[in-house]
Amino acid sequence: MSDASQDQVFEFLCRMGDNTLVLGHRVSEWCGHAPVLEEDIALANTALDLIGQTQMWLGLAGEIEDKGRSADDLAMLRDVWDFRNLLLVEQPNGDFGQTMMRQFLFDAWHLAMLRALAGASHEQIAAIAAKSVKEVQYHVERSGDTVIGLGDGTSESHMRMQNALNLLWPYVGEMFVPDAVDDALAQAGIAPDLVHLRTEFDTHVGAVLADATLIVPEGDFAHKGGKTGFQHSEHLGHVLTQMQWLQRAYPGATW
Amino acid sequence: MSDASQDQVFEFLCRMGDNTLVLGHRVSEWCGHAPVLEEDIALANTALDLIGQTQMWLGLAGEIEDKGRSADDLAMLRDVWDFRNLLLVEQPNGDFGQTMMRQFLFDAWHLAMLRALAGASHEQIAAIAAKSVKEVQYHVERSGDTVIGLGDGTSESHMRMQNALNLLWPYVGEMFVPDAVDDALAQAGIAPDLVHLRTEFDTHVGAVLADATLIVPEGDFAHKGGKTGFQHSEHLGHVLTQMQWLQRAYPGATW
Repeated sequence: MSDASQDQVFEFLCRMGDNTLVLGHRVSEWCGHAPVLEEDIALANTALDLIGQTQMWLGLAGEIEDKGRSADDLAMLRDVWDFRNLLLVEQPNGDFGQTMMRQFLFDAWHLAMLRALAGASHEQIAAIAAKSVKEVQYHVERSGDTVIGLGDGTSESHMRMQNALNLLWPYVGEMFVPDAVDDALAQAGIAPDLVHLRTEFDTHVGAVLADATLIVPEGDFAHKGGKTGFQHSEHLGHVLTQMQWLQRAYPGATW
Repeated sequence: MSDASQDQVFEFLCRMGDNTLVLGHRVSEWCGHAPVLEEDIALANTALDLIGQTQMWLGLAGEIEDKGRSADDLAMLRDVWDFRNLLLVEQPNGDFGQTMMRQFLFDAWHLAMLRALAGASHEQIAAIAAKSVKEVQYHVERSGDTVIGLGDGTSESHMRMQNALNLLWPYVGEMFVPDAVDDALAQAGIAPDLVHLRTEFDTHVGAVLADATLIVPEGDFAHKGGKTGFQHSEHLGHVLTQMQWLQRAYPGATW
C-alpha cells in the first residue's frame, strides 16, 4: 500500500466538500418555492445536512493543506477554476422532478462512496464519512421514493422524470472516471476503487429506475471536467456570484 | 432662484446614472436570448447606450462628490441601499413584451426628463442630457412601435402586453413623486418640475397605448422607495451580485 501525497488528499477532500457545498446551495434555492410545505422543509433540511458535511470536509482540507485557510475561506474565496465538484451538482434545479432526479443520482453515488470511506484507513476521513452516511442514507431513501412515485405516477410526471433522467444521465459517468488522485487514494486504502463503486451504484439505481418505470438512456457519453477542475459548466459561475457575494463585498464579515 | 446643495446634485446624478446602469444591465441580460436576431442586436445596442450614459452621469456625480470615487467605483462598489434608481428599472425582464413595455414606460419618462435637462441651467448636466437625448429619442421610437405592434397584434401578444402594462403601471408613479431633492433642483433651474413632466408623459404614453389597443389600469397606487433608496425590491440585490461580483472578487481589476 503506497501513500497518497498531501496535495492528493487535499484535492480529494475538496472534491467531497465542493460536491456537498454546491449541491447544498442548489437545494437551498428551493427554500420557500417547493410545491408543498413538507417538501420545502425536507429540501431545506437536506441542504443543511450537505452544508454541515461541507464544513467537515473543507475544514479537514484546510487543516491538511496547512496554509491557514478555513472551510469558509475555501467555500467563499476560491473562484470557479479551483472548485472540484462534479458537474452534476452544479446543474440548475429545473422543475421539482429534475431536482429530485439530480438528488437521487448524486445520493446513490454519495452513499456508496461514504460507506467505503467510513471503513477506510484515514481516521479523520473515516470519521466524517461515518457521520455523513447516516444523513445520506435518509437522503437517498427520500429521493429514491420520490423518483419512483413521480416516475410511476401520472403520464405528465412520468414524462418529466424521463426527461430529467435523459438530461442528467450524461453527468453520471464523471463520478466513476478515475484520475491520478483517485488512483493514489485507492492504492493508499483511503478511498474506494471507483469501478467497484459503479457496480454498487448500478445495482441500486437500476432497481429504483425500474420501479419508477423509467428507461436508462443508451450510450456512455459523459460530461467531464468538474471534479478535476478542468472545465466547469457555465452554471457554476452563477452559483458562486450568489453564494460568495457577501464575503466578496464584505471580506471577513461575521454574524 | 435658489441653489441646490452639492449633496442634492450628487443625489440627483446618482438617480440618473443608477437608472441607466440598472436598466442597461437588465437589458443586457437579453444578449443572445432575444426572439429574433435584429431584436437581440437592438437590445444590446440599447444596453450599450444606457451604460455609456451611466459613465457620464456617475462620472459627473463622482466629480461633484469630490471624494475620489470614479463612475466605476459608484457602479461596482455601492450596496443596494446606496442605489437611487427607480423601482421600475430593476424589475425582471419577464418575456420580450414585458421587457419592451418596461422600456417604453422608462423611455417616455427619460425622453421628457432629458429634454428638460438639456435646456436647463447646469452646464455639465445639460451637456450630458443633450448627448443622451438623441439616443433616447431612438429608444422610445423603437419601444413605442413595439408596444403598438404587439399590443395591436395577435390575441396572444395583446394579452401579454396588457398583462405587462398591468404589472408595470404601478411603477410609473414613482417617476413623478417629487421629494426635497427634486424640489431643490427644480427651484435651482437644473431639473424640471415633475408635475409638468407628467403631463408630457401622459400625452405621449396615452397616445401610444391607445394605438396599441391597451387599457391603462385604474387607480394611482405607486410602488415607491427606489429613487430615494428607502426600499428597493428584492430584485436589485440579485442584479448587484451578478453585476458587481468581478470587482468585488478582484478589486481594482482592469482589462
